[in-house]
Amino acid sequence: MTSKLASCLLSKLSEPQATALNKVTIVGCGDVGIACAVTLLTQRVTHNICLLDVDEAKVQGEISDLLHGSKFLEYPTIVGGRDVALSINSRLIIVTAGVRQKEGEPRLELAQRNADLMKAIIPDLVKFSPNAILLIVTNPVDVMTFVAWKISGLPRHKVIGSGTNLDSSRFRFLLSQKLGVSPKSVHGWIIGEHGDQSVAIWSGINVGSVNLKDINPDIGQNNDPEKFGKIHEQVVSAAYEVIKLKGYTNWAIGLSCSDIVKKIFSNSNAVLPLSVLAEGQQGIDVEVYLSLPCVVNASGVTHIVKTMLTVEEKGKLKKSAASIFKVQSELKL
Amino acid sequence: MTSKLASCLLSKLSEPQATALNKVTIVGCGDVGIACAVTLLTQRVTHNICLLDVDEAKVQGEISDLLHGSKFLEYPTIVGGRDVALSINSRLIIVTAGVRQKEGEPRLELAQRNADLMKAIIPDLVKFSPNAILLIVTNPVDVMTFVAWKISGLPRHKVIGSGTNLDSSRFRFLLSQKLGVSPKSVHGWIIGEHGDQSVAIWSGINVGSVNLKDINPDIGQNNDPEKFGKIHEQVVSAAYEVIKLKGYTNWAIGLSCSDIVKKIFSNSNAVLPLSVLAEGQQGIDVEVYLSLPCVVNASGVTHIVKTMLTVEEKGKLKKSAASIFKVQSELKL
Amino acid sequence: MTSKLASCLLSKLSEPQATALNKVTIVGCGDVGIACAVTLLTQRVTHNICLLDVDEAKVQGEISDLLHGSKFLEYPTIVGGRDVALSINSRLIIVTAGVRQKEGEPRLELAQRNADLMKAIIPDLVKFSPNAILLIVTNPVDVMTFVAWKISGLPRHKVIGSGTNLDSSRFRFLLSQKLGVSPKSVHGWIIGEHGDQSVAIWSGINVGSVNLKDINPDIGQNNDPEKFGKIHEQVVSAAYEVIKLKGYTNWAIGLSCSDIVKKIFSNSNAVLPLSVLAEGQQGIDVEVYLSLPCVVNASGVTHIVKTMLTVEEKGKLKKSAASIFKVQSELKL
Amino acid sequence: MTSKLASCLLSKLSEPQATALNKVTIVGCGDVGIACAVTLLTQRVTHNICLLDVDEAKVQGEISDLLHGSKFLEYPTIVGGRDVALSINSRLIIVTAGVRQKEGEPRLELAQRNADLMKAIIPDLVKFSPNAILLIVTNPVDVMTFVAWKISGLPRHKVIGSGTNLDSSRFRFLLSQKLGVSPKSVHGWIIGEHGDQSVAIWSGINVGSVNLKDINPDIGQNNDPEKFGKIHEQVVSAAYEVIKLKGYTNWAIGLSCSDIVKKIFSNSNAVLPLSVLAEGQQGIDVEVYLSLPCVVNASGVTHIVKTMLTVEEKGKLKKSAASIFKVQSELKL
Repeated sequence: MTSKLASCLLSKLSEPQATALNKVTIVGCGDVGIACAVTLLTQRVTHNICLLDVDEAKVQGEISDLLHGSKFLEYPTIVGGRDVALSINSRLIIVTAGVRQKEGEPRLELAQRNADLMKAIIPDLVKFSPNAILLIVTNPVDVMTFVAWKISGLPRHKVIGSGTNLDSSRFRFLLSQKLGVSPKSVHGWIIGEHGDQSVAIWSGINVGSVNLKDINPDIGQNNDPEKFGKIHEQVVSAAYEVIKLKGYTNWAIGLSCSDIVKKIFSNSNAVLPLSVLAEGQQGIDVEVYLSLPCVVNASGVTHIVKTMLTVEEKGKLKKSAASIFKVQSELKL
Repeated sequence: MTSKLASCLLSKLSEPQATALNKVTIVGCGDVGIACAVTLLTQRVTHNICLLDVDEAKVQGEISDLLHGSKFLEYPTIVGGRDVALSINSRLIIVTAGVRQKEGEPRLELAQRNADLMKAIIPDLVKFSPNAILLIVTNPVDVMTFVAWKISGLPRHKVIGSGTNLDSSRFRFLLSQKLGVSPKSVHGWIIGEHGDQSVAIWSGINVGSVNLKDINPDIGQNNDPEKFGKIHEQVVSAAYEVIKLKGYTNWAIGLSCSDIVKKIFSNSNAVLPLSVLAEGQQGIDVEVYLSLPCVVNASGVTHIVKTMLTVEEKGKLKKSAASIFKVQSELKL
Repeated sequence: MTSKLASCLLSKLSEPQATALNKVTIVGCGDVGIACAVTLLTQRVTHNICLLDVDEAKVQGEISDLLHGSKFLEYPTIVGGRDVALSINSRLIIVTAGVRQKEGEPRLELAQRNADLMKAIIPDLVKFSPNAILLIVTNPVDVMTFVAWKISGLPRHKVIGSGTNLDSSRFRFLLSQKLGVSPKSVHGWIIGEHGDQSVAIWSGINVGSVNLKDINPDIGQNNDPEKFGKIHEQVVSAAYEVIKLKGYTNWAIGLSCSDIVKKIFSNSNAVLPLSVLAEGQQGIDVEVYLSLPCVVNASGVTHIVKTMLTVEEKGKLKKSAASIFKVQSELKL
Repeated sequence: MTSKLASCLLSKLSEPQATALNKVTIVGCGDVGIACAVTLLTQRVTHNICLLDVDEAKVQGEISDLLHGSKFLEYPTIVGGRDVALSINSRLIIVTAGVRQKEGEPRLELAQRNADLMKAIIPDLVKFSPNAILLIVTNPVDVMTFVAWKISGLPRHKVIGSGTNLDSSRFRFLLSQKLGVSPKSVHGWIIGEHGDQSVAIWSGINVGSVNLKDINPDIGQNNDPEKFGKIHEQVVSAAYEVIKLKGYTNWAIGLSCSDIVKKIFSNSNAVLPLSVLAEGQQGIDVEVYLSLPCVVNASGVTHIVKTMLTVEEKGKLKKSAASIFKVQSELKL
């Protein structure tokens, strides 16, 4: 605002000092990072965003494209670039940055490459926003959230992984299709590892006060005459299917992250399945992050729901934990 | 959360410490205060409200009624009562409290009674929320905003009156009816005193790039063949008309206040007609608050637009200032 | 738009013919009707409202007050008055009109007076909007919805009572307070009669995949060591408490109705506890309206959830049905 | 909903017959079409979308990805594929489909290829939704809107091009940066051809009641000491800049289209710069579509603002019209 016309138009009373609260920094401006930014802005979860990416041109292009639509948004402030200092005073940081799995690359190698990336960026992010909550999206998300927690030095309730919030949304959508009711009215949960080893809590699905298990006691089991188990298989393969069709996934994960941020910023105490340090829960006795139903609020995650699992579900969860722990233990941090 | 069931259901990781930011305290739970609360909550401007009123029963009734609808709102936190300490750490305080004009009561006496009320409440409010922005609604609003500013010791850009934001909205609505376009597309301004001595800027009304004065050079003047001046008269009498019909006004003023708060919280730099310390503007050389187009953002009001008034408009504005100053000078603070 | 200036400003291409869809007519402009209007407009459920009331001044006052805030809303169209013809082409009609219980008045007399009112207004409403869905709020709501259904000649799925959608919201809020989680994450249901004879489904409350009954098998029963049953008592007395404090209730019921309308207009298939013709459900063999979990969508209510009740809960529901049927049978229609 | 469990869970009252109103079909699922879909859904402009594209896999991928996030949206209904019949009963159709300019391809050839595409799709779209409003986005947008109008046989007020709504938003954003006020408070207009030959109305920019020309009479002209004209140059080059940085533009145009749809569906009478049949306006005597400030509502565009242009602005507009007419005349329809 240095134009002469501006000084003829406006009489200055004071320097603007304050900024909008609830600044969100998004690290990684790929399809997922941008889907987070767009769904945060259009749903008015925040008006104050910082985009970080090593690809400076891409970041500036996305920022300009969004700002050119300012008239149609609610007063966005959007900054960004390569410099982590731009993220200063963030209230929440979403980390989507990460390398993609190379063809034939063992899972551990991917995890190591992304863990190295976490080591490179997390300390600076925390330095510029020591009170921020970290929301990790980079895959393998459970391992990466553990790594971010270790590196950050932050308390466990402030480092969260997006986990199975997305898997649960897919689960509810697919169940809703089979039942003919809205996904918002199907209260079902996927916990454990985000992805292949995730665990469906068939014993606790509630629709309109009815526990589905009370109608079909074998729901989701091998002997289920209606084969609801296939729905969990579809949840697991959903990302692969979408990638096959459009090349990548971004909307569902972006919407999932915006939903988590909304529930944090509104201090909601909502219960969401998020990746948290699960040690001491459900008989898990090692330091692993995996998803469990959590109470989220402005402090991060303050409580974990003591889900009542069947023996079989508990077994699967422990297997899920072991699988994550194995990758984690082999990482060099 | 002391129930045994809760402790069987939830495993605690940490005490909740943080709260939702953007707490708004509303002082005065009459029709206007409650209209502010409802429009703030339903339009998601804030989720974090404190209601203060001397009538403890009324406050608790309103809070319960709103909280009983929690499932249909976005995670509201609502506290309140008589105790100013409840307002601690507010980001913004809306003051609607005030006595009503008694029949036959001289205007100065009303102003004195409400000024006494400001003296009683403002210091405590500022003590518990030293960084809050004050938005004064109590009438006569220009005088009361001056009083609140004096008493608070806050810088001028942090003490604002709702002023003619409402009058301007009424002006645009009435113009829009005559033109057949949306009120949001009629850019017209009422400035000066909120109420009887307000000033319409007939020289600066813009619709779709057209300055209406370029079509009708006498628009709003005595010799205007189309008598647009009647619209300003209707703006001035609007509140009286509504009071005659329903007994009081609350929706338009509540919506106006929510709009101001939204534009502050989103650090918008929007231009709104608000009551500000006008000394040094438009040839006004005394310490009075009255409405001028202002730039609002997270700091409060940082700039005033140097409106280009006709000689006649400027004369009316000065008369408006003198009228406010007279009341103000006779007050005992 | 007859001003000369308007015709100099605008070149007409065609007469406006279409209107915004989703018109909502609200019958009765008391505190509840206006709370419906305000929450519909501010939450953008509809932009197109008709307010009907015998008190023409009150209606015009409310309309003016709302329209004066047009700049702060999303392009509202609001009409109203005494004339039912104003409601033409409504997509949904909310009936809140009704006389209040006189002191000492037997319940049946109140029902008869409000039934007479239904007889007077429903036929005209249906004549002007033959495809509208009727949402009845007037108390006793279950009986009045039955009466409206009978009089209207509409199919049962298009005549709905607001029922225990509100009671359930209060139930969830009160449970949420005891559990420390958001009301939106406590999936609990109140069914049956709206008010004194309502039935809590203690057997089907789900929080984060956990059925609370699996933690406390006696939850809500007489022998419950934690006395959760008191929460149902509080639900029943909630309206009385609020009336005692502020004189009437309006926000929670207004928000409840807006939520129902949103879920109808978005063709959501959401499951809500609404008052529906319950004949043939849960062993009820008479024509009564009472609340059960329903699937709501653009057609109205297309399905009822076959809630699995305990013997005790079923007994209470039947008692609830009998109580409603008794009042209903004694009405003169 | 054919599962046995569903029939044990739900008792059917009636077949769902109605659907959510305000169905929007988007033709073309590239970056722009998807940005339209996402901003419509997340901003709750509609819940009912049909996506059409020849690339069936891409469409199904996008639909699945969006539906997997259903829990985080407001009850979306999303259908799509290659079959135009899926668009039946749309209230509004956005056409984004189009081939891209080949390197070195003359502009006319591009126009011819996209005109051929319009000829192929418009008749079927109109057949299935005879009452829909057409919103054309495909470039060159002014020519394509003319072609769509001719082919559709619809009245002129129901066939609209997205035109300079986007250019104007960019203009306001860039001005706002120079002035230090929100883009929503800078009322400036770009009209004429979308793109290179667009015309800035420097004579009619209003900020807070001030016509900027009254401060700087040469604003935007060659002799402007502050060189505001550069801002118009930046508007023209904005798309190229963004394409250079991120490869394409989509957010600003998607947000612009959602804004137009919102203002149509809410019957707003908002004034927007849209591409309309301009014959008879501003001395234009040929059948061309180009952007002028228009009144939009549920009928489409019912009025055009008689912008008061300087001689120079009018000259540029006529040149813009001639340039469009030339391409148009050489097309084979």
